[in-house]
Amino acid sequence: MSAMRITARVINTHFLSKGHGSNSFGAREFSISSCRNMKYVQFTYKDNPDDIRVGYIDGCNVVDINAADCAMPKTMLKLLRQGQIDKVSELKKFNPKPVPLSQVSLAAPIHGVDKVLCVALNYADHCKEQNLEQPKLPIIFSKFASTIIGPNEAIRLRTELVKKVDWEVELAVVIGKKACSVQADDAYNYIFGYTVAQDISARDWQKEKNGGQFLLGKSQDTFCPIGPCILTSDEAGDPHKLDIKCTLNGVEKQSSNTSNLIHTIPAIIERLSSIMTLLPGDLILTGTPGGVGVHRKPPEFLKPGDILRSEIQKIGALEVKVEQF
Amino acid sequence: MSAMRITARVINTHFLSKGHGSNSFGAREFSISSCRNMKYVQFTYKDNPDDIRVGYIDGCNVVDINAADCAMPKTMLKLLRQGQIDKVSELKKFNPKPVPLSQVSLAAPIHGVDKVLCVALNYADHCKEQNLEQPKLPIIFSKFASTIIGPNEAIRLRTELVKKVDWEVELAVVIGKKACSVQADDAYNYIFGYTVAQDISARDWQKEKNGGQFLLGKSQDTFCPIGPCILTSDEAGDPHKLDIKCTLNGVEKQSSNTSNLIHTIPAIIERLSSIMTLLPGDLILTGTPGGVGVHRKPPEFLKPGDILRSEIQKIGALEVKVEQF
Repeated sequence: MSAMRITARVINTHFLSKGHGSNSFGAREFSISSCRNMKYVQFTYKDNPDDIRVGYIDGCNVVDINAADCAMPKTMLKLLRQGQIDKVSELKKFNPKPVPLSQVSLAAPIHGVDKVLCVALNYADHCKEQNLEQPKLPIIFSKFASTIIGPNEAIRLRTELVKKVDWEVELAVVIGKKACSVQADDAYNYIFGYTVAQDISARDWQKEKNGGQFLLGKSQDTFCPIGPCILTSDEAGDPHKLDIKCTLNGVEKQSSNTSNLIHTIPAIIERLSSIMTLLPGDLILTGTPGGVGVHRKPPEFLKPGDILRSEIQKIGALEVKVEQF
Repeated sequence: MSAMRITARVINTHFLSKGHGSNSFGAREFSISSCRNMKYVQFTYKDNPDDIRVGYIDGCNVVDINAADCAMPKTMLKLLRQGQIDKVSELKKFNPKPVPLSQVSLAAPIHGVDKVLCVALNYADHCKEQNLEQPKLPIIFSKFASTIIGPNEAIRLRTELVKKVDWEVELAVVIGKKACSVQADDAYNYIFGYTVAQDISARDWQKEKNGGQFLLGKSQDTFCPIGPCILTSDEAGDPHKLDIKCTLNGVEKQSSNTSNLIHTIPAIIERLSSIMTLLPGDLILTGTPGGVGVHRKPPEFLKPGDILRSEIQKIGALEVKVEQF
């Protein structure tokens, strides 16, 4: 069977760039005294690619949290689920030795979560490009956690069975603590941070091959690249003031600002948490702006050799390469 | 906020009953020499309700696998993911002491899985009761793993927000090993076993409140009771020859046989695994027969005080009680 593969990789130096156009995607010096005010990553050492680690960015380096204190967890999910984020600030007493980013391979900044929730039709121009009305309430679908990949991992597509693979850059919210029946004005207290996500979508399976249910078009293996880091909520400030864009082979395809979200992040959290408990690590992909491939004239889809770059202000950029299987 | 609660509980003696009508739901003596030929459960000791354990039924007792050999995992999911099922047969050398079922509380027989996949419209009478054609290919939707509950746990519904809560008894397949691009005639090699599931469904949220996407009606907290056990594939024989039924307050609401499945289990596994890798522990709820509440005249929905009993031949019965929140 022929197929194509998308390699997700991140340019580590994106953490260090001092600006991108009019936006600041740049790095900063992180104070270890503020554990919530930083960029978290997951990574592996190049000589031990199966051993996932969680750390935070410190200039050109990463601090390995478990290496600093072996009582601390080795994954982002455990750090959140075990409520140990606040202990990261205590690591300085162990005088942790930062590791140059060049010596590690970045992975998805979180994996193994319970929920990957996605909001449909949440930018006006994305509604307009498909002649649909803006929904009065957020429409929610999902991906399986096993679809998550990170930098340096490959997305695997089956080109014999899957023909219309499309891009959707999205701001993803990372839930920080259990959220049940949360009101919108309290919602930020439940957010840990934000990352860049691609809601990769097989339009044929999403719209034609599964009775109208999106799941099979959205939850194919490796259809959820995220990264390169989780920017903590404190540092992000208002998440509705971030430039968001996506380029394919250097040509801009999507460009917007999260101020254009139809349903705000607090409103989405209120809606979701009214009927389901959000758990630490759960991801909410907040919707994509106009410019997806399927609604272009003529339609465009990913093909082997393409390079898809997704960027969100303050968080960073993720490059994804399309390859044959 | 008022709400209702469904308590899922199992009558442990169901394992021991010697027959139910014309069917055998009865217990048997399990040979520890055949690790794949048994009923697996998860449970807690009554003095330690937070410590989940995996075991297998042995007459009126349960054998605690981790207590027999502390090198073995404590959960069903780890037993499958770590590929240690075959080691269960070696436990006899440790001369494990069976624990009377009366001394434990049964839990869901598996939890924390990556996928809970559900097949829509997979019995002809369920299609007919809603005037829908039988789908040519299986239509798939999902629940989150966090919706799983087991015997002795409570389902929590919000009656202010959720009005039309319905039952759907289903045979659930438990995947035993990683399945990628599996052909139908090879599918049974990837099945670990079967359990009874209730695809609890809020019809208002499923059909009216989420733009046609089923997710929010299907994935509310505790909407996936399963249990009481996982019957291993060897013992189940052909899974398309099992009586399946559901009674509400003692009145039969659904009664069918899995021979009536439109899309067979191997066909469903071939379809799913063609685009996503099924992982050990993944559940596939194979669809529900006719007789659900929403299509009755007049429609019927669950209300506090109801008792919902779901049974599948050879596997057993699960009783679920509806309670106020």
